[in-house]
Amino acid sequence: MSLEKVSANRVANGVLTKYKFPSSALGLETSVNVYVPDGAEASPVPVLFYLAGLTCTEDTGAQKGGMFNSAGKHRIALVFPDTSPRGAGVEGEDDDWQLGTGAGFYINATNPKWKHYNMYDLIAKELPEVLGAASLGLDFSRFSITGHSMGGHGALTIYLKDPARFRSCSAFAPICNPSRVPWGQGAFGAYLLTRTRSSPPAEWLPHDASHLLAQSDAEKLNILVDVGTADQFLTAGQLTPEALEQAYEERKKKGRSDDFDLRRQEGYDHSYYFISTFSPEHVDFHAKYLNA
Amino acid sequence: MSLEKVSANRVANGVLTKYKFPSSALGLETSVNVYVPDGAEASPVPVLFYLAGLTCTEDTGAQKGGMFNSAGKHRIALVFPDTSPRGAGVEGEDDDWQLGTGAGFYINATNPKWKHYNMYDLIAKELPEVLGAASLGLDFSRFSITGHSMGGHGALTIYLKDPARFRSCSAFAPICNPSRVPWGQGAFGAYLLTRTRSSPPAEWLPHDASHLLAQSDAEKLNILVDVGTADQFLTAGQLTPEALEQAYEERKKKGRSDDFDLRRQEGYDHSYYFISTFSPEHVDFHAKYLNA
Repeated sequence: MSLEKVSANRVANGVLTKYKFPSSALGLETSVNVYVPDGAEASPVPVLFYLAGLTCTEDTGAQKGGMFNSAGKHRIALVFPDTSPRGAGVEGEDDDWQLGTGAGFYINATNPKWKHYNMYDLIAKELPEVLGAASLGLDFSRFSITGHSMGGHGALTIYLKDPARFRSCSAFAPICNPSRVPWGQGAFGAYLLTRTRSSPPAEWLPHDASHLLAQSDAEKLNILVDVGTADQFLTAGQLTPEALEQAYEERKKKGRSDDFDLRRQEGYDHSYYFISTFSPEHVDFHAKYLNA
Repeated sequence: MSLEKVSANRVANGVLTKYKFPSSALGLETSVNVYVPDGAEASPVPVLFYLAGLTCTEDTGAQKGGMFNSAGKHRIALVFPDTSPRGAGVEGEDDDWQLGTGAGFYINATNPKWKHYNMYDLIAKELPEVLGAASLGLDFSRFSITGHSMGGHGALTIYLKDPARFRSCSAFAPICNPSRVPWGQGAFGAYLLTRTRSSPPAEWLPHDASHLLAQSDAEKLNILVDVGTADQFLTAGQLTPEALEQAYEERKKKGRSDDFDLRRQEGYDHSYYFISTFSPEHVDFHAKYLNA
């Protein structure tokens, strides 16, 4: 697997490098931005993935997320993957911003029409392997994940499917219960074949953060979530943080003592102005576990 | 003069509002982003202008500059003007990214062909008047200015023409000596009528930071400049920070004791990754004078 360097920019006492490589998960070339603080080759650093939302690319979080100075201070690497395959050639994939290009939803499609759409495998398996093997100084034994909106759904579900692999998870305005809201229903309905007639289909539930949290048997979960009260997609019923809170009540019944905080931020919306306001606090949250 | 609100986003314990208004300086409508920390109506806050570079708009610094959290912490308002008139209708104004649209160079054109291009008046006169009169809680008796590249040239020249109006000035990778480098020569040659045959023309010198600094009789100047050593436009000879340093030597000969710091930042380039790395330090620098 050969990483090809596309560009490099010095930022926050480190270097942000854009790589491209032929992804075996996607069967297509993909791009990823990787920030590595100075000195990581000699003294490897922990890794925080940032998963972006609908319509975004590997550049959006890097350009607007406001995370570098905090990451540099804590000596944490940041990885910004793309949000979908590019050029998969699916009919109509560029027609709707909520499906197809820019809208991979961080799952593996089971509908053969979307055969390249295996963003779960890209994020959870291939990127850690490829970047870990590339002698960049990344220590994937200290690994955390965050994301925004669709990417907040991605961060939470990838974390909750295998929490032992991660130190912590956070999310900005995540889609908390995708199997019951239009964004998730549209994506899951397209990407996932269903045989069950339940509502929501059983095949959707392993990709739903609220379902996964309620079911989780993990010893201790470390989760920070921020949602703005003026978020237009909160109002539109796409985010439903109350479902995640309800699921957390199920967890508590098991006697688990998690580090779980879901904060409603008064007056903030869905934009990167919201993210960049709170992203330093999210990096601090992850640093507590990554550098423990 | 009626400010029309275009949009508003909560950020860093304040609100970023985009306004548009018919500018009398430009003879055209212009847009401006204004960040005001909470509580400014009751307790007015000082103001920092950020002037963006070639090809940028009023959104670029807001989206990528990374200044809000620092500004919020120090309770400083931020103002992000546009970089040129829009739709002035000059033949060819959209053909070259270094001239015309997106390239106003923060001067008043004297060539009638460019009659709308009066960005100096917009920034130095009209915006402080219009925003100061709008009951936003902005205290223009505490006023500082910063900018990037062409906007660094703008910040330095607007400051040096009338330093008593400002508490401090800073710049990221400014064009320090525009009358002697291709970017400035192209812009000044187009926008400014010249009668003199000197080289550079005498009409250009009032818009050249190095000339203004060498000539300045101000009691004390407060200037911070950062330039990346891997800046492609430094290498190309467009920025020439050594000219500003040389001019500062002239100032020192007058026995002035300025707060002047021109830093070369190893390995940084011309991008917003460079700006966002150091912008919190620039806000800290201005806060020292704005909140004194």
